[in-house]
Amino acid sequence: MAGDYPQEKFVNASLQPGSYWERWQSVARNVTIPIQLDLLRKTGRYDAFNLKHIPYYDKPPSIWPVPDHLFWESDVAKWIEGACYHLQNNPDAEIQSHVEYLVDLIEKAQQPDGYLNIHFVANEPEKRWSSLRDLHELYNFGHLIEAALAYHAQTGSDKLNKVMLRFVDYCCTVFGTEAGKLAGYPGHPEVELALLRLYRRTAHADCLRLATYFLTERGRNGGQYYNDEQARRGEHPHTIPSMMPKPYSFWYMQAHKPIAEQDTIEGHSVRAMYLLTAVQDLVVSPDSTRFTTEHQVKELAAAARTLWNSMVRTKMYVTGGIGSIKQWEGFGIPYSLPISTDEGGCYTETCAGIGLLMLADRLLHEKLDVNVADVAERVLFNSSITTGMSVNGKSFTYVNQLASSHEEPCQRFDWFECACCPPNVMRTFGCLQGYFFGTLVARPSDLAIHQIFAGNIDYLGNRVQIQTDYPLDGSVKLKVDKIAPSATIWLRIPGWAQSDYQFSGDAKFTNGYLAITQPGDFQLQLNLTPRILHSHPDVGPSRITLAYGPLIYCIEDVDNAWINELPDREQHFKHLCVQLPSDAMQIRVNKPDEAGIIKLTLPKAGYTLKVQDEDGFASAFEQNRQPGYYEQQGQGRDLVFVPYYYRCNRAETLGRMRTSLRVKAL
Amino acid sequence: MAGDYPQEKFVNASLQPGSYWERWQSVARNVTIPIQLDLLRKTGRYDAFNLKHIPYYDKPPSIWPVPDHLFWESDVAKWIEGACYHLQNNPDAEIQSHVEYLVDLIEKAQQPDGYLNIHFVANEPEKRWSSLRDLHELYNFGHLIEAALAYHAQTGSDKLNKVMLRFVDYCCTVFGTEAGKLAGYPGHPEVELALLRLYRRTAHADCLRLATYFLTERGRNGGQYYNDEQARRGEHPHTIPSMMPKPYSFWYMQAHKPIAEQDTIEGHSVRAMYLLTAVQDLVVSPDSTRFTTEHQVKELAAAARTLWNSMVRTKMYVTGGIGSIKQWEGFGIPYSLPISTDEGGCYTETCAGIGLLMLADRLLHEKLDVNVADVAERVLFNSSITTGMSVNGKSFTYVNQLASSHEEPCQRFDWFECACCPPNVMRTFGCLQGYFFGTLVARPSDLAIHQIFAGNIDYLGNRVQIQTDYPLDGSVKLKVDKIAPSATIWLRIPGWAQSDYQFSGDAKFTNGYLAITQPGDFQLQLNLTPRILHSHPDVGPSRITLAYGPLIYCIEDVDNAWINELPDREQHFKHLCVQLPSDAMQIRVNKPDEAGIIKLTLPKAGYTLKVQDEDGFASAFEQNRQPGYYEQQGQGRDLVFVPYYYRCNRAETLGRMRTSLRVKAL
Repeated sequence: MAGDYPQEKFVNASLQPGSYWERWQSVARNVTIPIQLDLLRKTGRYDAFNLKHIPYYDKPPSIWPVPDHLFWESDVAKWIEGACYHLQNNPDAEIQSHVEYLVDLIEKAQQPDGYLNIHFVANEPEKRWSSLRDLHELYNFGHLIEAALAYHAQTGSDKLNKVMLRFVDYCCTVFGTEAGKLAGYPGHPEVELALLRLYRRTAHADCLRLATYFLTERGRNGGQYYNDEQARRGEHPHTIPSMMPKPYSFWYMQAHKPIAEQDTIEGHSVRAMYLLTAVQDLVVSPDSTRFTTEHQVKELAAAARTLWNSMVRTKMYVTGGIGSIKQWEGFGIPYSLPISTDEGGCYTETCAGIGLLMLADRLLHEKLDVNVADVAERVLFNSSITTGMSVNGKSFTYVNQLASSHEEPCQRFDWFECACCPPNVMRTFGCLQGYFFGTLVARPSDLAIHQIFAGNIDYLGNRVQIQTDYPLDGSVKLKVDKIAPSATIWLRIPGWAQSDYQFSGDAKFTNGYLAITQPGDFQLQLNLTPRILHSHPDVGPSRITLAYGPLIYCIEDVDNAWINELPDREQHFKHLCVQLPSDAMQIRVNKPDEAGIIKLTLPKAGYTLKVQDEDGFASAFEQNRQPGYYEQQGQGRDLVFVPYYYRCNRAETLGRMRTSLRVKAL
Repeated sequence: MAGDYPQEKFVNASLQPGSYWERWQSVARNVTIPIQLDLLRKTGRYDAFNLKHIPYYDKPPSIWPVPDHLFWESDVAKWIEGACYHLQNNPDAEIQSHVEYLVDLIEKAQQPDGYLNIHFVANEPEKRWSSLRDLHELYNFGHLIEAALAYHAQTGSDKLNKVMLRFVDYCCTVFGTEAGKLAGYPGHPEVELALLRLYRRTAHADCLRLATYFLTERGRNGGQYYNDEQARRGEHPHTIPSMMPKPYSFWYMQAHKPIAEQDTIEGHSVRAMYLLTAVQDLVVSPDSTRFTTEHQVKELAAAARTLWNSMVRTKMYVTGGIGSIKQWEGFGIPYSLPISTDEGGCYTETCAGIGLLMLADRLLHEKLDVNVADVAERVLFNSSITTGMSVNGKSFTYVNQLASSHEEPCQRFDWFECACCPPNVMRTFGCLQGYFFGTLVARPSDLAIHQIFAGNIDYLGNRVQIQTDYPLDGSVKLKVDKIAPSATIWLRIPGWAQSDYQFSGDAKFTNGYLAITQPGDFQLQLNLTPRILHSHPDVGPSRITLAYGPLIYCIEDVDNAWINELPDREQHFKHLCVQLPSDAMQIRVNKPDEAGIIKLTLPKAGYTLKVQDEDGFASAFEQNRQPGYYEQQGQGRDLVFVPYYYRCNRAETLGRMRTSLRVKAL
């Protein structure tokens, strides 16, 4: 079981053909992989490891000092990685040939000393490692390692792993606190989590040494390393990229203090998730103390939980999305969670959701915690892969706002100049089932089933078959064929379902999980009745959100044609108020439509707040009469909701959508 | 009547001894002037015009690239200016001697070519004009001009005016679009409004020429001048001060496009107000087209109104405060008006309120507009001078949040490193009554009384006596002794009072003003009954604010001792909910206390919302049960309110205060 990594354990489970998740996975395999391959070719990425200079490289950076092609390695690497996962059980000679071509090219691109990078070799060889803060060499390295591991697992060939180990050895001569080395660490974490996985696979000590060094050195003296390297570049300390909020604001990359001393989640959300995934992976590693002290590991373990709680309790959207601020693609202050551009932003990057899944997996490996698994479920269904990719596998989101606005309608795109998200979604679908289950560090024969899905698991001597139409239906058949000696199979009951579920067997309920200790056939029934979620009182305007099982719902123009009759700026449901039913049971659950989508209807519940003409206000902050005037009197409009992830999946949409709505005052 | 400037016309009115405003003015004169003189001496400002280098100048800037002493000229200038206003009717030999000393020192500090600046002459003579964006030479120049004008008016001596005219002549050789000149304009506007006033006083054409140039050149090609000068400094364009939100974000100083093309109010709020004051002063100038086209002036006039409306309708707090964002001391997006640090900020700088008064005065000079005068009233009583200075004249605010928080309790200070606000308040009190009345460009014999106050006006052949205890009482006696031939005296009825007032005479009511055309004794009765102001539906959480006449009220710890029994973080009234009375009449208006403060009481109206433990939330954005659980059942607590400006004026306060409160759900 090596590291119990999703990227590895996924081969121990399969998704049932035609089931909810299998449909997504097969679309990603059959549609997305070839499309993205095509995009890699069209954009120049495919051949970039030949290290030849191309005119594109001379383009001035859209965001100084980051050349637009700086992440190309990671785009290619994520594609290789994802393709290898998908190929593992679904051979495809053509895709395989492209994987082999790219792997060969990467191998050849390695420099004699072990260094590997497109931009710096092809364009600025003298500037290698000149800006760890901004220039992403180590980030790219991390993604190359993940590609190598996937390639190795799929093909059995360790040639790419060997390339990576040479790069590791070279990095060990470059980085460290010893004289003559750079006492730095990457601006964008990623290599740390990859190094820890490479260590588990190869037992090459330098991988662990380097990862431990990066994690323990990070943030020393408030991120002074970044000041030092900037001085070496001859730059003024106030010379910063546009996404850095201020000079010296190293909290942007979680380097404002040592990780162990950080107690609130801050900065760029993807960086934070990738970093904490590595932290937590070091914590659960059997060799965690090989290159540092037990005390340090305990502090890191405490920090990982503290920062998780800071995030989930005070900085997470109802979709599970994280990161409200566009400028630094990351976290704002606690409880400040605007839902759209015209409210002040809402970012919740697709990659951040994927990073959060990785982190949750590492936390659940240490101990069962239904709250962690609940968040993972929320993210799986509403703020990472399903939200980030269209159901046809062809278009993507980078930003996932909870509401559209005149300034920023809801849209999906084929690709992005900074293309981190689309291949990240694809690779995550490739090993998807690996996120659904795992084992426990302290009980390495146990099987924990964190997420309900239709399929089979055969892991560590435990064998289980699951049949269900979840999330469309709450009925789950569980066939436990085999349990390893003295092992327990843990089955999570989602937090939202705990007050109303039935389980046919004898199983102790502990910490949100049912403990199954005997083989047999079991039946689990979850109550999916729609729920009305209320915003936390400290989160700006009071609003409600509809949920159905694990799905968060939104209202979209396609199903609510009346919105087109309102003035243009009102067509984003901004002033729509819901007359709440006295009982959530009155929310109508429609039969799945031809696309398999269950819509929810709130009959006659929609009223549009009449906002006085701007002239009617002495100031934005004041009106002399009480709000609560609605455009229409009498019966409200029927409101029809679809799952949030499903927004912007139908050609008819004009990009108008809202997830959380005002409540109609009496 | 020259320019009908508050700084000049104030001599045509007097405040009634012992009245509300006279008490403030005399405290500013008797207490604040000597205290601030003392501070000028203690901090080194008093002698800085001797241009000797002192060790303080070698201190690295707190905020690069702005040396901490960069604004010293303006601090001294505002003190001279304010002292001269106060001295005008209240001679004081000692204060006068300090004024003379400083004036002499400034005169001697002028360089042979006309240049005048402490920092650049004493420290970096070779860097003169090297950064108009950040280094404030022209800002300081503007304040020196205002000091010169005040000194001239008070003493009759034009020696400081002459210094300024020499500086103007020199600037005309430096700035302009002609070859060999700098096609720049100041990062912080101020000199423009001062130049226009200097022109009115002296008729020196170059003053108007230079001001017109600055106003019409500003923002050309998106502020390209600032890029050009940065390149000349050898700096990278991404080298920016911390308060600039991003590289190239010249909207910070309203230079992202020509003023005539700006249609939303953006950036640093003080800069915006000083700039628009100058724009509007050019608009109302009889010589507005002397150095530009009529078309351009019309465009500027339209922009001034558009930007005013953008500000008042979408970016102004209920106190009249402007500027929600701390980083750039300025405006955020429309309707984004957090009220405290823990909500995301709230700045509403004292100087911005003063700038807004100046702008309102210029707009009212063009035409009567009760909405503009209403905003000016709101600002006078709640977000500039009275809020910015303690009632004893000894301590000040820079930032005026609407609510305190654990992170930022409500406080007042003697002085600030960047000391713009305290002397700005003092100088504004010096010419205060000049903001209360004026005339109209198109009817230059008319007298418009914009603000109700106790005192006399004798202006342009019109003579009026006003007796009132306003704002403590709504009764106003108006004795019109004389009206100029075919003139009208306009008396504003505040917008909030228009639905319920009595006036004893025959007077047509037009556009919010009563038109008085015959002398006589009149009686005006305004209804001050407390009002409940509701926040605009687009402004985050729904909240109410109490008002009494022109005063906005807040709740403070001193009067509500029960708050001390709540947990520490709850002591900022954050979760206090008000049970609104069915009728605002039920708000108890207490008799003035010994300090002359009328408190308002909402009996048994206060309930503290019980916020679930953080553990109770799956995420910040969600709770499964409806909010609305209150700590105590049954009777609520009595809530006692004081005027917002009065906060933090009693020794007993622990700095806990809130202006706008939640409403208790049923």
